[in-house]
Amino acid sequence: MKPRLFTPGPTPVPEETLLELARPVTYHRAPEAKAILAEVSEDLKYVFQTSQPVYTLTCSGTGGMEAAVSNTLAAGEKAILCTAGRWGERWRGILKAYGANIVTVEVPYGKAVTPEMLEKALKDNPDTKVVFSTLSETSTGVGHDLEGYGKVVAKTDALLAVDGISGVGAMECKMDAWNLDVVVTGSHKALMMPPGLAFVAASAKAWKKIDATPVRNFYFDLRRYRKSLAESDTPFTPGNTLIRAQRVSLKRIRAEGIENLWARHARIAAACRAGVEAMGLKLFAERPNNALTVIAVPEGVEGTATLKAMEKKYGFKLADGQDTLKNHIWRLSHMGYTDAFEVLGALSALELVLGEGGFKLDAGAGVAAFQKAYAAGK
Amino acid sequence: MKPRLFTPGPTPVPEETLLELARPVTYHRAPEAKAILAEVSEDLKYVFQTSQPVYTLTCSGTGGMEAAVSNTLAAGEKAILCTAGRWGERWRGILKAYGANIVTVEVPYGKAVTPEMLEKALKDNPDTKVVFSTLSETSTGVGHDLEGYGKVVAKTDALLAVDGISGVGAMECKMDAWNLDVVVTGSHKALMMPPGLAFVAASAKAWKKIDATPVRNFYFDLRRYRKSLAESDTPFTPGNTLIRAQRVSLKRIRAEGIENLWARHARIAAACRAGVEAMGLKLFAERPNNALTVIAVPEGVEGTATLKAMEKKYGFKLADGQDTLKNHIWRLSHMGYTDAFEVLGALSALELVLGEGGFKLDAGAGVAAFQKAYAAGK
Repeated sequence: MKPRLFTPGPTPVPEETLLELARPVTYHRAPEAKAILAEVSEDLKYVFQTSQPVYTLTCSGTGGMEAAVSNTLAAGEKAILCTAGRWGERWRGILKAYGANIVTVEVPYGKAVTPEMLEKALKDNPDTKVVFSTLSETSTGVGHDLEGYGKVVAKTDALLAVDGISGVGAMECKMDAWNLDVVVTGSHKALMMPPGLAFVAASAKAWKKIDATPVRNFYFDLRRYRKSLAESDTPFTPGNTLIRAQRVSLKRIRAEGIENLWARHARIAAACRAGVEAMGLKLFAERPNNALTVIAVPEGVEGTATLKAMEKKYGFKLADGQDTLKNHIWRLSHMGYTDAFEVLGALSALELVLGEGGFKLDAGAGVAAFQKAYAAGK
Repeated sequence: MKPRLFTPGPTPVPEETLLELARPVTYHRAPEAKAILAEVSEDLKYVFQTSQPVYTLTCSGTGGMEAAVSNTLAAGEKAILCTAGRWGERWRGILKAYGANIVTVEVPYGKAVTPEMLEKALKDNPDTKVVFSTLSETSTGVGHDLEGYGKVVAKTDALLAVDGISGVGAMECKMDAWNLDVVVTGSHKALMMPPGLAFVAASAKAWKKIDATPVRNFYFDLRRYRKSLAESDTPFTPGNTLIRAQRVSLKRIRAEGIENLWARHARIAAACRAGVEAMGLKLFAERPNNALTVIAVPEGVEGTATLKAMEKKYGFKLADGQDTLKNHIWRLSHMGYTDAFEVLGALSALELVLGEGGFKLDAGAGVAAFQKAYAAGK
């Protein structure tokens, strides 16, 4: 049986990137290593759609989020937290650890925080220093209107920090054009790499605040990364084989083109949603994003057991819900190095396993609807 | 020409470990991933010579050092910093970022901080909470007497935190038997892996202090790692392909045996020092350690240019000195996956390039002395 990875991180990695990881290790301060970092940093600017430098941190996405918090906020300063799921709660955990004064804009899991809600919170809290938000709320499948947030926040003195970890690359996100002040992402989602690297960029507005904020830690101090990257270097020994491999995946992204990458994800996601609904299933997110499709487990079906059967019998590994959503949702990623035919296969496997479990469905309806929607897409 | 890596991190990685890195990515929360983490954690306990759990952090060694500082010290608490080089200064940078009250025990580069110096500092500062020390000072080649430090610190209420990044695996280090309270190392030195993982363990005495210290950050909060590892898990998405590959290199270490690994490094290091001295060169470190040999550049020789020629002509990549030591020392690693015949080759290349540059030496004296000392070793 062929194993197939559909978890919303890690995601499948192109073969040429994996092979790069098997090449001998080299010295991270050699001129060749600096040239690679410089190239990766340029390609990341393209992916982020920014003219600002993008810093490479050796850590998981959470480390990048911690950098966003600790560099922009002094203890006791006010932050607005927009939270619609587990990753919004991740911001909260970091904000609490750094003693932020947190104002929460919260919606139930499956719903989205709207720009209007954020606008009201900003009006009520004019002393807000930073707004923390989530592009793709991977725990529920919701995508947030960051372009809308950006318009609202840009009118104030506050910064807009974005967890773009499972969003950047999978859905439209234009750091400069949308006035996003701090954007964080990770290697292991739409950027087609194993976990281990986080990427962070900050706007000129953000840098002004960062330079006025006391140093709060060391490894995540962005000023150190700024100083080093000016010489195509990193302040600490980086995961240099990961950076070398990220270069390979970024070349693939450049060759495809970022707009084409967004369009590919949008087309597959739309077809996937059509397929799911044609199977008589419901989408969990009220504002679904293109990184993953989150399906509500229908009444009478055991969510976790279904996923286990699907993996054991057909090799497809989807993700369960987390915490209280465990057994209640299925999360199917179509990020990065995943194409339409693979997602079609995943729907086929889901149809099969549901049918075998006694769930009533019209065999073939899901894959046919996927095919029809995909053919109609562009 | 065959490239050969002799930098004191990164170091050469075994072929089977590299190939593991090229295998497809899998889900980090799957039972198989948890089993691998559990196995790696057990093998790390063996490498650390401790009965305490060893935590795997996705970051470079500096991140592990930051965890050691931020978990054990509240702001304003007193720390004794033993510093004999650049990596002692790394502790200082982190301690400053976290607002520690720093008492410094300092010696010039090339010298070692003795247990007696530390004992005096502890007597003068009975309110010390943590002593920060360096097992292998990679910037100078000095090894510190951690067994001696342990005896001194154990008599007090203070903790002993050790940067074992280039030392653990390359030289004798027994966490429990020597009363080391916090030990940090990284994947990319004697543990035969690319950079990207740090490993941290804490004694029962250390955990008592950690539990009484306020939370100071998030990603490096060791309590989160303790809670997760109890369920063979990590608190944040780990570099799971790196962990999988570290497992392969740890199996190699277990097969060799930790005492044999230490003995191998000791034997090669002794032979290397004999070879260097037979070439008419001087060792830089007054108390040289077995992870690397640091050679003082002789009068009239350009250190940096010699290394460049050695790499260009013969493929051997040694490391230059850092900061003020640049051009003044050569650093030759014999850590991890490096055997006697490769170090012999490096001495041969150094002899050749020095001779070609006009430095007077007795051709063959270095390699003969290496051979003789190695044959006499065990």
